[in-house]
Amino acid sequence: MSEIAKRVEQLRDQMKQHQVDAYIVPTSDFHETEYVCEYFKARAFMSGFTGSAGTCVFTAEEGKLWTDGRYFIQAQKQLEGSGIDLMRMGEEGVSTIEEYLADVLPKNAVLGFDGRVMNTAMVEKLQEKLKEKNITIQCDMDLVGAIWKDRPALPASQTFALEEKYAGKSAADKLTALREEMKRFGADAHIITRVDDIAWLLNMRGHDIPCFPVVLCYALIKADTAVLYMNAKRLSEDLKAEFEQINLTVKGYEEIYEDVKYLEEGCHVLLDKANTNFKIVSSLPAGVQIINQPNPIVLMKAKKNSVELENIRRCHIRDGVAMTKFMYWLKHTVGKETITEISASEKLLAFRKEQDYFIEESFNTIAAYKDHAAMMHYSATKESDVELKQEGMLLVDSGGQYYEGTTDITRTFVLGPISEECRFHFTTALRSMIALAKARFLYGCRGMNLDILARGPFWDLDLDYKCGTGHGIGHVLNVHESPNGFRWRVVPERNDSCVLEEGMVQSDEPGVYLEGQYGIRHENETVVRKGEKNEYGQFMYLETITFVPFDLDGIDASLFTQYERQWLNDYHAEVYAKISPYLNKEECEWLKEATRAI
Amino acid sequence: MSEIAKRVEQLRDQMKQHQVDAYIVPTSDFHETEYVCEYFKARAFMSGFTGSAGTCVFTAEEGKLWTDGRYFIQAQKQLEGSGIDLMRMGEEGVSTIEEYLADVLPKNAVLGFDGRVMNTAMVEKLQEKLKEKNITIQCDMDLVGAIWKDRPALPASQTFALEEKYAGKSAADKLTALREEMKRFGADAHIITRVDDIAWLLNMRGHDIPCFPVVLCYALIKADTAVLYMNAKRLSEDLKAEFEQINLTVKGYEEIYEDVKYLEEGCHVLLDKANTNFKIVSSLPAGVQIINQPNPIVLMKAKKNSVELENIRRCHIRDGVAMTKFMYWLKHTVGKETITEISASEKLLAFRKEQDYFIEESFNTIAAYKDHAAMMHYSATKESDVELKQEGMLLVDSGGQYYEGTTDITRTFVLGPISEECRFHFTTALRSMIALAKARFLYGCRGMNLDILARGPFWDLDLDYKCGTGHGIGHVLNVHESPNGFRWRVVPERNDSCVLEEGMVQSDEPGVYLEGQYGIRHENETVVRKGEKNEYGQFMYLETITFVPFDLDGIDASLFTQYERQWLNDYHAEVYAKISPYLNKEECEWLKEATRAI
Repeated sequence: MSEIAKRVEQLRDQMKQHQVDAYIVPTSDFHETEYVCEYFKARAFMSGFTGSAGTCVFTAEEGKLWTDGRYFIQAQKQLEGSGIDLMRMGEEGVSTIEEYLADVLPKNAVLGFDGRVMNTAMVEKLQEKLKEKNITIQCDMDLVGAIWKDRPALPASQTFALEEKYAGKSAADKLTALREEMKRFGADAHIITRVDDIAWLLNMRGHDIPCFPVVLCYALIKADTAVLYMNAKRLSEDLKAEFEQINLTVKGYEEIYEDVKYLEEGCHVLLDKANTNFKIVSSLPAGVQIINQPNPIVLMKAKKNSVELENIRRCHIRDGVAMTKFMYWLKHTVGKETITEISASEKLLAFRKEQDYFIEESFNTIAAYKDHAAMMHYSATKESDVELKQEGMLLVDSGGQYYEGTTDITRTFVLGPISEECRFHFTTALRSMIALAKARFLYGCRGMNLDILARGPFWDLDLDYKCGTGHGIGHVLNVHESPNGFRWRVVPERNDSCVLEEGMVQSDEPGVYLEGQYGIRHENETVVRKGEKNEYGQFMYLETITFVPFDLDGIDASLFTQYERQWLNDYHAEVYAKISPYLNKEECEWLKEATRAI
Repeated sequence: MSEIAKRVEQLRDQMKQHQVDAYIVPTSDFHETEYVCEYFKARAFMSGFTGSAGTCVFTAEEGKLWTDGRYFIQAQKQLEGSGIDLMRMGEEGVSTIEEYLADVLPKNAVLGFDGRVMNTAMVEKLQEKLKEKNITIQCDMDLVGAIWKDRPALPASQTFALEEKYAGKSAADKLTALREEMKRFGADAHIITRVDDIAWLLNMRGHDIPCFPVVLCYALIKADTAVLYMNAKRLSEDLKAEFEQINLTVKGYEEIYEDVKYLEEGCHVLLDKANTNFKIVSSLPAGVQIINQPNPIVLMKAKKNSVELENIRRCHIRDGVAMTKFMYWLKHTVGKETITEISASEKLLAFRKEQDYFIEESFNTIAAYKDHAAMMHYSATKESDVELKQEGMLLVDSGGQYYEGTTDITRTFVLGPISEECRFHFTTALRSMIALAKARFLYGCRGMNLDILARGPFWDLDLDYKCGTGHGIGHVLNVHESPNGFRWRVVPERNDSCVLEEGMVQSDEPGVYLEGQYGIRHENETVVRKGEKNEYGQFMYLETITFVPFDLDGIDASLFTQYERQWLNDYHAEVYAKISPYLNKEECEWLKEATRAI
């Protein structure tokens, strides 16, 4: 019996003891953070599946894992022998979690989960769906915790202030702006549990989660008071001084659960049920009025200010230099020295570390060779690692956290001979990325209006990629940030369909993924900018801020339209102009050729 | 004082007599029909503006006309001297009707209109907006009728049955399917007031409205009874026989207003408030439960069945022959004989009349020369009519009603030398039309996902057209039909944002309109078809069904991408193959050249 199967048995023992008929193990911390620290990796512990998104449900007989298209191939592999079935979200005929539970649970059954790691909207959806079956919900239990002997500790990193020269706006000003928004909603209090929202609001960063410079904490803001819930010992001196000045009180991490119980009768509390854990909301007294709205910080944070944008542009040059040096090294070293997926990732990290203001990676580098790249979010392990040869392609999706900003870039490198089909797909994916990059559009457009520009060249071939075309990106924060993005359908839980506003930063990363064959993705970041305003309205466009060559060795130039070709040649000229000053002579000569007009 | 200004004064007298502070004159008949017959042209009577869409509001001091972008130029001209101000809908800073009334009406004021020509949703929106001002609504008055001495009579045309060989489905089958839908909604009764819905349901057509082969009537359908409200004398013998067989009772036109008063307590009535007049809804007894949902016929009617589609394809060949002959005649006659906008329209109608199964035009032909074409829905009058010369361009937007189907096509013809800018725009508009025509997309897409394909080439130039890119088209019915269309934003009252379903027919008609200079539009019709189904989902595509050459004299071939050029050459080859068999030798030779590969 596999280790995972044993854990599932132990969990079922716990379920029996607690008289629970089904138990949900989601992928979440107490803050609905996308990437969670080790303490919270309960779903991976219970299933063996290590992707960033997925939810397990266990009954006495069955174990199921729901995950999305990015992870179908990886999850299928990692679930082998676990006895847990993969539920491919979004595919025809695949039940949702609610549908599944409504189907398998008998009347009057008990459904259990840890209320701190389930968001309120999700629980309410479950309650609605299970209403007719008279299901009891037990949310005060952490059954995985009970069987997880060597569970890692909760993080407790030191924090630091993100200086105003990077943030562009003081915490005091941000608090004032937030209180204005609260007024607009008629809110007396605002509960904030998203750690990136609090980090942005207070210009505070930390190292609680790898790649994601935040601090686990909660905040409760009222018109005249502000409380931050976290161990005060973790605060840097400058943050302490700043917080004193803005009258921010610091209380213990868990104290929020008590404090919310004493909110005044009739108090209007602004919170976003989709992002606030069920335990907090169920702790609110009955007389409190919930204003269930998106947290106003989400939009404030997404519209980067001019200082943030200047910093972001600067860090993209640094990041571009690291990536370009990596590309030079890779193309000149493969076949001469031993390189593997993992050693290539390490080399890339070394190049990034040479750059000023670098903090850490913004996510685990995906360095995926040949068919590994067909797994959209593949992450090489010792077991899967392979040597790179002078053939096929290497997909590298990576990014950095700098004091100036957060980067996310993908390039697919041609290491030797590739098939004609491969070249066709490589070029199609680039045409697709370019079509979106050069979009001009009227103010009011959302990602769903533009998405077909990128997806069109694939749809023309009866192909698709099972994910969005791009996502919002934080500033020295989460590499996936709401509420902007590119996707053709509204997926409410993604919250990435907002009107594209000036200053928003997002990726443009279409790709092709052929299981067992190869994967190709090209990714640049863009900033939404204002263009001409005339009788037709306010025109907008996307400014590309990533500067690294696309590998011309993968290109069939005859497939480009004259407009796409022009874009690519202009882009490559800009790459050369911006990056070459930071390269040595050999790298420079190579870059000239690598960015030649086609 | 102008005639219009006099009428406005008379209306104000009426308003004073009836103690009404503001009076609304919308563009509607009792059935929310888009194009109304002469009896209902109260708004044109009161304002002089003859466009198909617009609403007047009069107060003691002001007169305002709201209309949309298609009509800004025309309305501006026609309102001159009337004292009525143009309100450009959708432009920044322009109030909506509700906002305007909420602004200008004093507390406790009286707002009047004829409740039969205002839809319920609109009235409820008004009521909501005016709530705080305690406005009284008086809807039992037709003040325009009171001053309109020589008002035309209500129409009373003879009806005819659309045979099953054209309709593809019997009225009996359609009634059964509708009753299934009613069950799905939990409806005991269904009030249908849209005349195209009833025409489709009963395979009945008539001539009550020019270009729109319908009959003014209402219907009330229950599980076991069906009542049609119209003068039974107007029924053809075959319709009478058919209706008897399906147990359909025929009552007087106005009797519906009495009948709905006697719907049973607790009865669930399905009706669409946006399409049902306020008088009907306010006549319902209090105990009736309204199910306010889109009329299910709308979607049933939009998804053309295979017999309808075969007929539609056939009538497009006929219509293409007429248009192609017209194009040959126009290009060979201009400068030799006197042609004006109006005489060209007449000539085109003559070519259509030569075709089998032709009934009438599907709308008033727009033949707009030079700067007239910048007015999107220009219709030549004796006063505006101009002679065509061997220079500039003539835009012709026209269509036919055939027993087989309804057509809608626009071509812009180059009559002589044109500027480089003009050629650039002509080609851009064609690139734009082609980009949408060749779209392939996953099932689930709506017009708003695809719209940027057409709009993109214009947005790239900071240009736009102030209307949708395309609209649904009926089968021997309304040339503008819901719920499909192409538009980048949801405009609820347009109801054209549905998921694109197999069998839907719609236009693809981007254009460029430069006030005082010229207008260019290219329009084909398409059918939504199923393509490949694979792991990514059900792919869909658009089958083009219009076959008439695009005037190559307007084209700068260097602007086309290779993909667009391929599409155009393939299309022109198909035009030649499909149309040439119906032409004479000279026309044929010319068509060969006019459809040459570029």
